[in-house]
Amino acid sequence: MTKPVIAVTFGDASGIGPELVAKLLARPDIRAAAQIVLVGDAWVWNRGQGIAGTNTEVQMIQNWRQARNGNGTPMLLETDTVREADIVPAQVTAAAGKGARLALTACLDAAKRGDVDAICFAPLNKLAMKKGGMDFEDELHFFADYLGVQDYFCEFNTLGTLWTSRISSHIPLAEIPKYVTKDRIQAAARLTYQTLKRAGFAQPRVAVAALNPHGGEGGTCGREEIDIIRPAVKELNEAGLPIQGPYPADTIFLKARDGALDSIVTMYHDQGQVAVKLLGFERGVTVQGGLPVPITTPAHGTAFDIAGQGKANAEAMTQAFLLAAKLTST
Amino acid sequence: MTKPVIAVTFGDASGIGPELVAKLLARPDIRAAAQIVLVGDAWVWNRGQGIAGTNTEVQMIQNWRQARNGNGTPMLLETDTVREADIVPAQVTAAAGKGARLALTACLDAAKRGDVDAICFAPLNKLAMKKGGMDFEDELHFFADYLGVQDYFCEFNTLGTLWTSRISSHIPLAEIPKYVTKDRIQAAARLTYQTLKRAGFAQPRVAVAALNPHGGEGGTCGREEIDIIRPAVKELNEAGLPIQGPYPADTIFLKARDGALDSIVTMYHDQGQVAVKLLGFERGVTVQGGLPVPITTPAHGTAFDIAGQGKANAEAMTQAFLLAAKLTST
Repeated sequence: MTKPVIAVTFGDASGIGPELVAKLLARPDIRAAAQIVLVGDAWVWNRGQGIAGTNTEVQMIQNWRQARNGNGTPMLLETDTVREADIVPAQVTAAAGKGARLALTACLDAAKRGDVDAICFAPLNKLAMKKGGMDFEDELHFFADYLGVQDYFCEFNTLGTLWTSRISSHIPLAEIPKYVTKDRIQAAARLTYQTLKRAGFAQPRVAVAALNPHGGEGGTCGREEIDIIRPAVKELNEAGLPIQGPYPADTIFLKARDGALDSIVTMYHDQGQVAVKLLGFERGVTVQGGLPVPITTPAHGTAFDIAGQGKANAEAMTQAFLLAAKLTST
Repeated sequence: MTKPVIAVTFGDASGIGPELVAKLLARPDIRAAAQIVLVGDAWVWNRGQGIAGTNTEVQMIQNWRQARNGNGTPMLLETDTVREADIVPAQVTAAAGKGARLALTACLDAAKRGDVDAICFAPLNKLAMKKGGMDFEDELHFFADYLGVQDYFCEFNTLGTLWTSRISSHIPLAEIPKYVTKDRIQAAARLTYQTLKRAGFAQPRVAVAALNPHGGEGGTCGREEIDIIRPAVKELNEAGLPIQGPYPADTIFLKARDGALDSIVTMYHDQGQVAVKLLGFERGVTVQGGLPVPITTPAHGTAFDIAGQGKANAEAMTQAFLLAAKLTST
């Protein structure tokens, strides 16, 4: 089997991204897992190696086609995205945001052509991205638009073997009930099930969270479970998808923590994020679900407070890379 | 200083309550902390001792006034609440629910007369309570009604030094915004601050949670933080109460877990309960806040699955008792 080609970008050049990428590529097991193509500026890569204290050899290439014939040595497809003089280490700048976006755009173009099998990017800074010209609420919407995605897509937060997704995200709490529709629940549950299959779960155990306290207490405390969520799950079951739930929100994460579930489809942002943060998902990996190419990134941010000191932990970056590799295998 | 008189009830006689009470009273430090008055049937006490394998001496008394002159030996004020033939061990029965309610009613009557300084009850079963004639959504509303409470009251969930309360509880998610009023937030924050003071916190660090994702993101994702919550907190600060927040829900519990907060006032049931359950609050203590007499109980339930086997853990019951004692001291 030919190795998959995985594009890796440095994320925001002012943050911990460059040093994380340097630490990532220093690992022989990582280099063995894929034909890696770094996409970005050589000076950023060199600075990352300098901070991390690594000295990994890379092969400079001029075009993506060389990647398919690579011998496994990591490659650097030098791409002008940002000049050293235009950024300030450990600070938000439009230049760094724009640079991060240009590198990702080059990867997305390659994905459209079939030159790359997955993309793994180091942390971005949302504010820098917006200052640098990203006209979307987040990078997922930017990716989906750029790739022309029409179907349902959503972000997955993963930590080890637990995956969460949500049917509504950055909206006011008062508007959540509008998003609780059969269509959205079924699309999210289907995408979750399929994505977990791709990630190697033979029989994904996916459950949907309830909306109301104690799951609505038989209709005395909200009717969405009876009128919408349960029928949505029932139809999925009839179509052969073993989706579970709805389960009350305050105990569903205990089931997941204790290993009885692989994934939870939540109804709103804080329903999942309160649990996710407590369970340590800042150490986890974000998967951009529903796109034609697997894209992963560490769940943590640019960590400007420790950027440039060489002490950033590359564990989440490593897991993000390995998950990208896994998602290419099916 | 005279010891406080603390009434202890067995809760639902079919659950683990009787054995928990037996284990509680077997501890010399517990017997030394208060003049304990058990309120209920002698057969329930004897059965609890039998299950727990304890043999603690109690003094039988006929009226509450004897308690004030006690020598520290635990007392049993025998009260006919339930007959052994009418209940089924480890099952929900109306008889056990009624019995639990009658014992509590006797304690509340004593509290009204000033004969008791605090009440600590073993786990109830809500369904049994309702079958047994409790016409309220939960025992807190029953207590508040029976005691004629007009001011704001709410339940606190406590685990060690972390306390949580909420301004809305068993209501549909769609109705939460209606409860987010300045009055309710201020009443809850004030009660929380005062209750923590009574519980021995010299300078309680109380924070209010935001309603919307990321605290509303400056008004782009919900305006309650700007229009209601922040002004409510500001007025409290101007009145001399150092209430913090609003803080985003998905990180406020990290602050609490890491010891930077003593208490969180949440906006709705699952906002707090998702975190609370993950942090292990089933091992915690519930305090009925805003009543004229301190009332505490373990946060866990009747545990019918292990009732009668003598293996129930009395730690939460012990903490509930000690907290009741502490709350009488000011």
